[in-house]
Amino acid sequence: MNSELHNLRKSIDNIDSAMVLLLAERFRITAQVGEYKKLHQLPPADLSREADQESHLKQLASESGLDPEFALKYLELVRSEVKRLHAALQAKN
Amino acid sequence: MNSELHNLRKSIDNIDSAMVLLLAERFRITAQVGEYKKLHQLPPADLSREADQESHLKQLASESGLDPEFALKYLELVRSEVKRLHAALQAKN
Repeated sequence: MNSELHNLRKSIDNIDSAMVLLLAERFRITAQVGEYKKLHQLPPADLSREADQESHLKQLASESGLDPEFALKYLELVRSEVKRLHAALQAKN
Repeated sequence: MNSELHNLRKSIDNIDSAMVLLLAERFRITAQVGEYKKLHQLPPADLSREADQESHLKQLASESGLDPEFALKYLELVRSEVKRLHAALQAKN
């Protein structure tokens, strides 16, 4: 394969690997948040916090050349997984 | 707010910020791949490459404690955005 294409794909692969490791770490942390909320009897959702996250990520996306709507799609994806993991944890307990 | 919850959320925010910057960079690179493929008249999809990506990310997810199915969902999300961006680019040209 041409080395230019090979190099671009290698960069994509490195980024994807970094993303997977960061996602793994993110869900380790949300598991701790879930434990904390359970212990302190806090509600699972915090709408004010969610709005702040959306606004911050959209701003950062705009500044870095990413479609802000895509940043929200990323956030939706991880939030749906957080909900799935919390539900699975509750079902287990 | 309790400092433990505050700290956990700060880590989540840092990870999300890193994700957005990495996603921005990933789409900068896929734009270059798109240009390369157009110049060399290569087909947009490469099924063998896609299978390799899936297998590698699932393996890495398993090793790092992330649900391998979620790694695939991440990949689907970015691939759908790559297709959307390529289609938008073609419509513009």
